[in-house]
Amino acid sequence: MDSIAIRKLNVGNKPMETYVLLFNNYVNQGVKKVVLYGRGDNIARAVDLYNLISRRLGGLVRLSKVNIGTVEYGGRRSSYIELEVEIFR
Amino acid sequence: MDSIAIRKLNVGNKPMETYVLLFNNYVNQGVKKVVLYGRGDNIARAVDLYNLISRRLGGLVRLSKVNIGTVEYGGRRSSYIELEVEIFR
Repeated sequence: MDSIAIRKLNVGNKPMETYVLLFNNYVNQGVKKVVLYGRGDNIARAVDLYNLISRRLGGLVRLSKVNIGTVEYGGRRSSYIELEVEIFR
Repeated sequence: MDSIAIRKLNVGNKPMETYVLLFNNYVNQGVKKVVLYGRGDNIARAVDLYNLISRRLGGLVRLSKVNIGTVEYGGRRSSYIELEVEIFR
């Protein structure tokens, strides 16, 4: 069970439902924490995704931690966000 | 001193330096906490602003709290982020 304790979900520019589906799969697999990662313009999409999940799953999820920072990407600096979502079930 | 304990800084689509300047003014006024607020696409800009400030001011600032959520705006739902920045001086 410990091997599926945490998963990372990279939020890109695919339709939002793609990421909701991935998240739901993790929930069904018994994953305890999912980190929603967004970089650059996808920061806003990672936040949108959390709000969407939170609205649909309600008390099943909780935002347990937020990290923000900077990464080098293609020779330039880019901001990122990590939203750590705890899953109760 | 307590009246200037906390200020909110709305991050919109003006040049980033505008917001850095506003932030620096707050620092110079003795404000203890500034909340960087971004809505929709400006979520990524609020995160950019924090990273920029953090790079320039180093140990003078610390990200003390992050809130994310949803607001109704113009009849549709919109995500927002609040980055609470603590100022040491």
